[in-house]
Amino acid sequence: MWKLALSIISIMFLAQPAMAGTGGDAALLASAREYFQPLPDKPVFKADNPTNPAKIALGKALYFDTRLSSSNVFSCNSCHNLALGGADNSEFSIGHKWQKGGRNAPTVFNAALHIAQFWDGRAEDVEQQAGMPVLNPVEMNSSQDLVLERLKTIPGYVEMFAKAFPGQNPSLTYENVAKAIGAFERTLLTPSRFDAFLKGKTGALTKEEKDGLELFIESNCVICHNGPAVGGQAFQKFGLVKKPEFLTDNGRFDVTKNESDRFVFKVPSLRNIELTYPYFNNGQTWDLAEAVKIMGAHQLGIDFNDKEATSIVTFLKALTGEKPKIDLPNLPPAGNTTSHPLTE
Amino acid sequence: MWKLALSIISIMFLAQPAMAGTGGDAALLASAREYFQPLPDKPVFKADNPTNPAKIALGKALYFDTRLSSSNVFSCNSCHNLALGGADNSEFSIGHKWQKGGRNAPTVFNAALHIAQFWDGRAEDVEQQAGMPVLNPVEMNSSQDLVLERLKTIPGYVEMFAKAFPGQNPSLTYENVAKAIGAFERTLLTPSRFDAFLKGKTGALTKEEKDGLELFIESNCVICHNGPAVGGQAFQKFGLVKKPEFLTDNGRFDVTKNESDRFVFKVPSLRNIELTYPYFNNGQTWDLAEAVKIMGAHQLGIDFNDKEATSIVTFLKALTGEKPKIDLPNLPPAGNTTSHPLTE
Repeated sequence: MWKLALSIISIMFLAQPAMAGTGGDAALLASAREYFQPLPDKPVFKADNPTNPAKIALGKALYFDTRLSSSNVFSCNSCHNLALGGADNSEFSIGHKWQKGGRNAPTVFNAALHIAQFWDGRAEDVEQQAGMPVLNPVEMNSSQDLVLERLKTIPGYVEMFAKAFPGQNPSLTYENVAKAIGAFERTLLTPSRFDAFLKGKTGALTKEEKDGLELFIESNCVICHNGPAVGGQAFQKFGLVKKPEFLTDNGRFDVTKNESDRFVFKVPSLRNIELTYPYFNNGQTWDLAEAVKIMGAHQLGIDFNDKEATSIVTFLKALTGEKPKIDLPNLPPAGNTTSHPLTE
Repeated sequence: MWKLALSIISIMFLAQPAMAGTGGDAALLASAREYFQPLPDKPVFKADNPTNPAKIALGKALYFDTRLSSSNVFSCNSCHNLALGGADNSEFSIGHKWQKGGRNAPTVFNAALHIAQFWDGRAEDVEQQAGMPVLNPVEMNSSQDLVLERLKTIPGYVEMFAKAFPGQNPSLTYENVAKAIGAFERTLLTPSRFDAFLKGKTGALTKEEKDGLELFIESNCVICHNGPAVGGQAFQKFGLVKKPEFLTDNGRFDVTKNESDRFVFKVPSLRNIELTYPYFNNGQTWDLAEAVKIMGAHQLGIDFNDKEATSIVTFLKALTGEKPKIDLPNLPPAGNTTSHPLTE
């Protein structure tokens, strides 16, 4: 009789999705390792964009240089702000002449680990991505010619490109602008306590965080949010179970024109998700627990209650990592003929 | 006969304004010390705004925090960019909803040493200045209430203010926002080779720079551009000898309504002038040699020729200083109730 009662109680607890961390640390670690990998200890560079300190320094300078925008108002850092969570904490970014972008700016931190760049994956990697907002009339509104004209007339940059791309002539090309920025972005990794956990230090996460991780795994969030960036590894339809009412963006369909890509987006990384509000492609909600519930309902068919959503959020906050230390670059002054800001 | 010829040659050389550095290093140093002082070795703080490391750290965070603007687009650093020369290298800064300011943004480097802030001196010091662009509808378009609401709902800031202003309750006030930023700005000193020269190391300047300095002194530029900031010590009428045609700004008259203040501006500091183009209250010219000629003609009644203007520019470039190393701050994330960007 007692045995039966205990079994029922056990089932009751189990029916509550794994809040109790029943399997123990070793089992949870083994389970987590099936889905996740720690961040690489060192930045991983591209074979065709090998790095050197001069290239990273150049990329950092360009990342912060407002002269890449036609108006001299915006730099990469305007929308992907390294002093915040690598994004701008706005639904849609403000760009040239106060125009608004159409999708929420994703974080640059750990972005180099994704399978592709942008919500719709239209750029292959950070090197390809870096050159695109510069030319977008809604964002930095520049042109390759304008960027090259400005950089070539700034003596400090001419020297920096020569050092960053030794043996290349010309070294100051638009492709190399993007390559240098991409190389810098590859250094923007934010290891967190979750990495220590994955490496075997199970005490690196609190009991509550481990409960949240277990729920995150058992609820199948990991089907999409996996890998070293806890996301960024696949494309997925938004509204797999039920289309969110707020969803009007066709996503990857705009790129491929394949009907199967309608409402499909790159799965966002959940690293630093605590810092990268508001959430979803349109910045739909600023509340991480609400975002978890929206995901549960629309992707998994699970209606997370408040306690469950809070538990998952507790885990997600353990993904907030340590940002690399960034010394503000000392940007080289313009030359006599460098073109002036174009604000119209 | 030879003696006479030599005398004539000497007079010919002397008639060229002092290009030869005739008085020797010691005389030039003595002369320079009559007008200039080196930058202070350490930042000078205000009696009613004593500093501590927590206050400087808070001030730096606020300086870079776009959430002080209603739109979350602009921070102090947007127009007074520490990666550039402490300004934005635009004729007029772009502000809220792409509005343009009416005067060229001055550099923040060494600004704490000026007798007053803004071109028209309407703020007493950097502490008073810091709170003003935040509230200007053309610039950051915020309000004291909005700033305080946002900061008070960001737990990290509540803690930072408590540490920066110990024993003060409430510590998170608008006045303290400005005081923290002001305290940080007081650290933004840029010592240059000119300081080494003033301290007695006459070899710190090249022969050409010393020639330029001598011409700068002999031409009476020093009547206005003097003190530790090589300017910033007085108000002066723009167009003392001849009103520039491009001058339409009433300057300090707008503040005092005294007819004698029409076209009067604070004398700008010439430290880092190489980096703070374009020049004058309206960004009239991007060419430093042209700026020198405009000053000569309109303030001193001297028509500097190309060689003379170049010589003065050579000296002025020696005022480009070493910027303090700035680690990008790690800004605390918003709280659940922190208000969202207002872009309209």
